[in-house]
Amino acid sequence: MAIPMRLRAFSSSASAPKWEGGVSMVQGASRGIGLEFVRQLLEKNEKGHVIATCRDPAKATVLLELKNRFAERLNVLPLDVTVESTIEESARSITESYGSLNLLINASGILSIPGVLQPETTLTKVQKSSMMLAYEVNAVGPILVIKHMWPLLRVGGGLGTERDVAVVANVSARVGSIGDNRLGGWHSYRASKAALNQLTKTISVEFGRKKDPVACILLHPGTVDTDLSRPFQRNVPAEKLFTKEFSVQKLLNIINNTKQQDNGKFFAWDGQEIPW
Amino acid sequence: MAIPMRLRAFSSSASAPKWEGGVSMVQGASRGIGLEFVRQLLEKNEKGHVIATCRDPAKATVLLELKNRFAERLNVLPLDVTVESTIEESARSITESYGSLNLLINASGILSIPGVLQPETTLTKVQKSSMMLAYEVNAVGPILVIKHMWPLLRVGGGLGTERDVAVVANVSARVGSIGDNRLGGWHSYRASKAALNQLTKTISVEFGRKKDPVACILLHPGTVDTDLSRPFQRNVPAEKLFTKEFSVQKLLNIINNTKQQDNGKFFAWDGQEIPW
Repeated sequence: MAIPMRLRAFSSSASAPKWEGGVSMVQGASRGIGLEFVRQLLEKNEKGHVIATCRDPAKATVLLELKNRFAERLNVLPLDVTVESTIEESARSITESYGSLNLLINASGILSIPGVLQPETTLTKVQKSSMMLAYEVNAVGPILVIKHMWPLLRVGGGLGTERDVAVVANVSARVGSIGDNRLGGWHSYRASKAALNQLTKTISVEFGRKKDPVACILLHPGTVDTDLSRPFQRNVPAEKLFTKEFSVQKLLNIINNTKQQDNGKFFAWDGQEIPW
Repeated sequence: MAIPMRLRAFSSSASAPKWEGGVSMVQGASRGIGLEFVRQLLEKNEKGHVIATCRDPAKATVLLELKNRFAERLNVLPLDVTVESTIEESARSITESYGSLNLLINASGILSIPGVLQPETTLTKVQKSSMMLAYEVNAVGPILVIKHMWPLLRVGGGLGTERDVAVVANVSARVGSIGDNRLGGWHSYRASKAALNQLTKTISVEFGRKKDPVACILLHPGTVDTDLSRPFQRNVPAEKLFTKEFSVQKLLNIINNTKQQDNGKFFAWDGQEIPW
């Protein structure tokens, strides 16, 4: 006789292996902020395990160097947020290898791709294809990842970490704030991040209502010196252009201190809440 | 010699025909709130002209009845927000026939389509195809319409109306508010409306900076007894379920009183501002 779903979930939770130091997943880990999250998670937590995903692990040379250094504490998996089957495959693999997750960081995101996507300087430059692509990658992608990792996060909760809850941290951006939008422009990117904020809030309500041991938060990393921001750094004062080491250190501090009551909140790197 | 763009714009503005009562465009006019906007605009303003657009005018029977009644004051054009060439064709047609616009109402929107799109009750039901479709129709579509009507709105401004400015009114919804999201669910719809809010705000910033005589606003019509809301009216108390006549009357009141300083704001049917 098949075990009813609810009982199966319970027994799986009760028998969940406790991974000392926790199991963290970083989605979008080949470069930039995502890669730096992987490095700091591994360096700062001697026992924690990290699953790093990116579209093409074979080309992620720095990530593969980390794999050499951290061996079985780092697991690199292929995942493309625009191809849901790759997300499902990762969820299956993590279920088999770990059975739980304590942290999911969605770090992937696009702002500009030469010849394909360019942040709009005026309404007349808005193209449907750019709007759809930014939305697919920046808003829909992370939500599909959460959808498939949710069962693992519910099992994990804060088990093996110093937190009471598992954390889903979506890397958003201050320019996604509607209330804080004073400059205009960047239509595709702004809309996709506002949608990501709304989706994260929507999910947080369900997690809260179900009393899941999972808190969803949104993070603004500041303007960080990465490939994503490089074409747009000209007007950024030097003291406001962060190294990825600095920004990720600040963001990890927020993540590590996340409590159930932070579920659904949008934090800047310095811990200040950002208006919607 | 070609006339420089700036001069050309000036001369076109100076020679713009003044349409007494103004020229209004209602996009998404075959039924529901859009159709009611067309009716009230024509009935309440004896001189105003209305351009009503919908995907398939031949099937819009009530709209065609209005056409019989109001003759040359109503112009029905085919426009599908998912096909940009139909938006461009409408803009060309309006340019030829009127040369200006004083009001653009984006009333089209989707929430559920049997077998295709269903408001999500939980994260596990979120489908990529639904997310993309809701975004395409509810967020990208209206913005493309504004993009192509912008030159006509700049020429029109408040000319021939009792306002100082042309108005772009995008029909949004309170469930698009992130700050007001207490129930969760409806992921596709909520995200698309939050994105519409962000895009409208983004456009309003550019209009303001260019000192265009155009104000963009977002409207929440309340829960209105239309095809869109019908499957979801069960839990709506009778006094909170509005007729479309009532809701549109309230919204037209807001539109008619819109001033430059309202540019970028999000109003409920009763004139209260809604948080982002």
